Formats: sequence, C-alpha cells, structure tokens
Amino acid sequence: MPYDNNNVFAKMLRGEIPVIKVYEDDHSLAFMDIMPQAKGHTLVIPKEAAETIMDLSEEGAAHWIKTAKKIATAVKQAFDAPGVVLFQLNGTGAGQSVPHIHFHVLPGSIADLRKPHASVQADPDELKQQAELIKAALQNS
Amino acid sequence: MPYDNNNVFAKMLRGEIPVIKVYEDDHSLAFMDIMPQAKGHTLVIPKEAAETIMDLSEEGAAHWIKTAKKIATAVKQAFDAPGVVLFQLNGTGAGQSVPHIHFHVLPGSIADLRKPHASVQADPDELKQQAELIKAALQNS
Repeated sequence: MPYDNNNVFAKMLRGEIPVIKVYEDDHSLAFMDIMPQAKGHTLVIPKEAAETIMDLSEEGAAHWIKTAKKIATAVKQAFDAPGVVLFQLNGTGAGQSVPHIHFHVLPGSIADLRKPHASVQADPDELKQQAELIKAALQNS
Repeated sequence: MPYDNNNVFAKMLRGEIPVIKVYEDDHSLAFMDIMPQAKGHTLVIPKEAAETIMDLSEEGAAHWIKTAKKIATAVKQAFDAPGVVLFQLNGTGAGQSVPHIHFHVLPGSIADLRKPHASVQADPDELKQQAELIKAALQNS
C-alpha cells in the first residue's frame, strides 16, 4: 500500500499539528503518546516515510532502534520504572492505528499491554511534565 | 547486572541445548518460541551478550533490528498473517523471563498479546513444520 502522506505522524513531522516532543535528530522523532497506556508512554518514529517494518529501509531501521534504545534508557531512569516494554504493530490487522511505523516505549510491564489502550486523551500538562523528566534523563545519560 | 552466561539463550547460542532455528548469521539467531502465543511465534536474538536494550551496543541493535525485519516479512508471508507484532521486554519487572535480549515476532495482532503466555510447550513437530514455512519464505524474499 502506498504511504499515506496525510497520516497524523506525517503531519507532526511536517509541523502541521502539535506534538509533545522529547527527542529529535535528523532521522527520528520521539514524543509523548497522547493516549498513554502507562505513565511516560513515548512513541519513537523514523522520519523516513514507511508504514511498517517491512517497508522501512535497513538504514532507517538502524537509526530508529538507536533512538528507541536512548528513549528506553531515559524513561526507565525518569520514572524509576521496574522495566521497559518496546512494541510495535505492523498493519491494521495487527492493531496499528496510525500508518507510519512507530515504536511504543512503555516504562512498565507486559501487564500494561494487556489493558486496552486508553480511550481518552491524557492531560497535556501532565504529558508536558513527563516529557521534561524524559528530556532531563536524556541529558544525564 | 552482569550478563548470566548460563541463561537458556546463551546455551542455545553455544549449541548446548537444541533450538528450532529459522535463520542465523554472524550477529543474530532466529528460532521458534517453544511456548508460542500465536502460530509462527519466532524469537530473534543478537549474539552479543546483552540482557536488555539498554545493554546492547548500537551496532548490535542495528544488526538485531535488520534480522527482526527479515523475520517479520517472512512470517507474514509464511502464515498469510493479517499483521505482525514485534515486542520485547527489558527487565524482570517488565516480564522478561530469559535474561538475554530477544524480540518476539508474532504473526497476528496485539490481541494475541493480551492473552497470557502459553504455559505448555507446543508440539516440536508442529514447530519444525512452521520453521520450514518461515525458511521457505526467507528464501523467496
């Protein structure tokens, strides 16, 4: 399927809609999930236009996992989390909601994944405070 | 925490215990999960001695995700899956059971993750048949 340039993450990458950013470099962007499954739930996306891991270039995947590693380390520290879960869904059949590849980085446990995804948006001010904690942890690492 | 050289995946990498292999290269190994959460449930591990993504080198992570991408593409094709879920747990607090970093590659949906992990081992012959399907798909890709 061709990449949909109007998906919400593509719009975030173009600066057309707001995003609570925690990290950005030439190849990737990390930001708060506005419907978090746990405190500190962050999303990591490559800037490359790819819907799934099957579409992403090897070089893009290498940059993406490097950023995911950075964010995993930071959220563990920022929220003194017992563990960190990384997951990503490929295809609507897997449950992927936004057709731009993204890693969920979840400070917490697989048990948090067994709960349904939040259906209401989190308080933006709380998310901004969490983003500050993650950014501080990124600077310390 | 220092890496435990006696964990079950370290033993598999040293050939001390059997493994139903689907792919191997200099940096990574992919094999059938003996307690699958869905048909075709495959694990992808780096050969580097690392417990979590926080411990894995950037170079190791790049090789690891490259193999995960290969396997995701193959299992989708092999099982005509509606989607593919990748997940990995960092730390016992996250639910990590074997202290060697591993990606779960699950042909299916996030809904399969909401079920508890199987508590009994799958039939080895069935797993071997599934491994053959994945290997065939790898050769076609």
